[in-house]
Amino acid sequence: MQRPALTNAARPATYEVDAINERGEVVPTPIAGEHPLTLYLDKRELVTLMTLGGAPEALAIGYLRNQRLLRSVEELAAVQVDWETDSVAITTRSGDFWERKGIEDKLGKRTVTSGCGQGTVFGDLMEEIDQVTFPADARLSEEVLYAVMDNVRKYESIYKQAGAVHGCALCANSGERGEIMMFVEDVGRHNAVDAIAGQMWLDGLTGGDKIFYTTGRLTSEMVIKCAQMGIPFLLSRSGLTQMGHEIAERTGITMIGRCQGKHYLLFTGKQRFSKTLGTQYA
Amino acid sequence: MQRPALTNAARPATYEVDAINERGEVVPTPIAGEHPLTLYLDKRELVTLMTLGGAPEALAIGYLRNQRLLRSVEELAAVQVDWETDSVAITTRSGDFWERKGIEDKLGKRTVTSGCGQGTVFGDLMEEIDQVTFPADARLSEEVLYAVMDNVRKYESIYKQAGAVHGCALCANSGERGEIMMFVEDVGRHNAVDAIAGQMWLDGLTGGDKIFYTTGRLTSEMVIKCAQMGIPFLLSRSGLTQMGHEIAERTGITMIGRCQGKHYLLFTGKQRFSKTLGTQYA
Repeated sequence: MQRPALTNAARPATYEVDAINERGEVVPTPIAGEHPLTLYLDKRELVTLMTLGGAPEALAIGYLRNQRLLRSVEELAAVQVDWETDSVAITTRSGDFWERKGIEDKLGKRTVTSGCGQGTVFGDLMEEIDQVTFPADARLSEEVLYAVMDNVRKYESIYKQAGAVHGCALCANSGERGEIMMFVEDVGRHNAVDAIAGQMWLDGLTGGDKIFYTTGRLTSEMVIKCAQMGIPFLLSRSGLTQMGHEIAERTGITMIGRCQGKHYLLFTGKQRFSKTLGTQYA
Repeated sequence: MQRPALTNAARPATYEVDAINERGEVVPTPIAGEHPLTLYLDKRELVTLMTLGGAPEALAIGYLRNQRLLRSVEELAAVQVDWETDSVAITTRSGDFWERKGIEDKLGKRTVTSGCGQGTVFGDLMEEIDQVTFPADARLSEEVLYAVMDNVRKYESIYKQAGAVHGCALCANSGERGEIMMFVEDVGRHNAVDAIAGQMWLDGLTGGDKIFYTTGRLTSEMVIKCAQMGIPFLLSRSGLTQMGHEIAERTGITMIGRCQGKHYLLFTGKQRFSKTLGTQYA
């Protein structure tokens, strides 16, 4: 694969401010960064994301991927972040993205999703859902589920320092250890999942042998993005919504919520999950 | 004030699905509703929000308010929700919103904010921030702060049943009790704040003698929306981001985060806050 030319322009994750606590004491308090980042695609302004700024290149690429504005990372020649102007210049190899795609019409129809309530997806959210397939032999054991939960719990996250961010982890489902391959946090939970989608493209990774973990809620768009990445297992520390559940059933993804301590709730795709002692749900 | 004609079309807040827990038991589990709601303004499609659907009329009005597409609720003739088509028809009294406002140009510049990462605001987020003023005599005592936290904790929320929602409360700052005047929950935290903004318009309420509480994080857009409603006090159970902090300082709003149990952190606008025993910060 020919990689696009990339900057490597992460911002500091936390900043310190003073607060006054209930005892009247001044408490230096780390808070999460938040920066506007305007995406320019072949010189046309596309959107401004508010981001922690930890992985701006992967975020920009993943945004284009998850909005289905690009079909392959190979369409990209360069992704150049410039924090002087809070912008990222994305250049396609052909250089005429807008002419070729006739995307303007699609921009006319925007869906604002329950990211945290008002994310955006161009076009029809559901249009590709029925084309999603997962490897026939994909399985998740309770042992690996617990390993993932333990790995995430121990991770030295920005959340532990400063709160106010959501995290997403891409984990391996090829051994017993559920190891974390990527961990991205952002002030927007959709930014975190988009950045992982972008980095997977850059690293040429497919989703079939992976597990996706998010600290955030399993709303419709979260399930759709995970399915589009081809990842059969979606775990969350949080709960889910009705549309998240409906779409999970429709795609057949294995979705497990309320992952905390030794507790979890298996909602959909139970045929792919087995308890440690060998039980498998029919 | 002439109220617009309104439907009253709340959806059920929760639905029940079966899950399997770590002991292999089937557990009936309430989950939060999530529905698309497409806003049509004077017959033109504006946006689709994913919402719990508990206060769709107030949400539609508050969305228009917080996006600064309308200046007054009196511009509205009718707000009619139809869940058969997942849509809400918003009609202005003049009926020619799009011609009068020349808003199309503004739609060209969209800011996707860290709602949960990717909310939308038309135009320049900051343009009105410097015009915000709060009543000169607005004060909050620690006693009322604790009363608000206690009221919110005891509230019979959808969150307690089903999780996966954020809540916002509008509270009175006119006595000692910090009573909840409105409480809105939604799968999107920006929907919850927008619905309160819409209901405040419908009820003719101003913000100067109120307190705003949110379960969600204090990101830039949350602070901006609270300031635009003219509410001098913004409380959250969660943390804040750097831009949330910067904008709070710029507007002079009194912002208190990490409100849990008997703990809190006072970040900005401390001159308006006094501890129970009479200390006031200079």
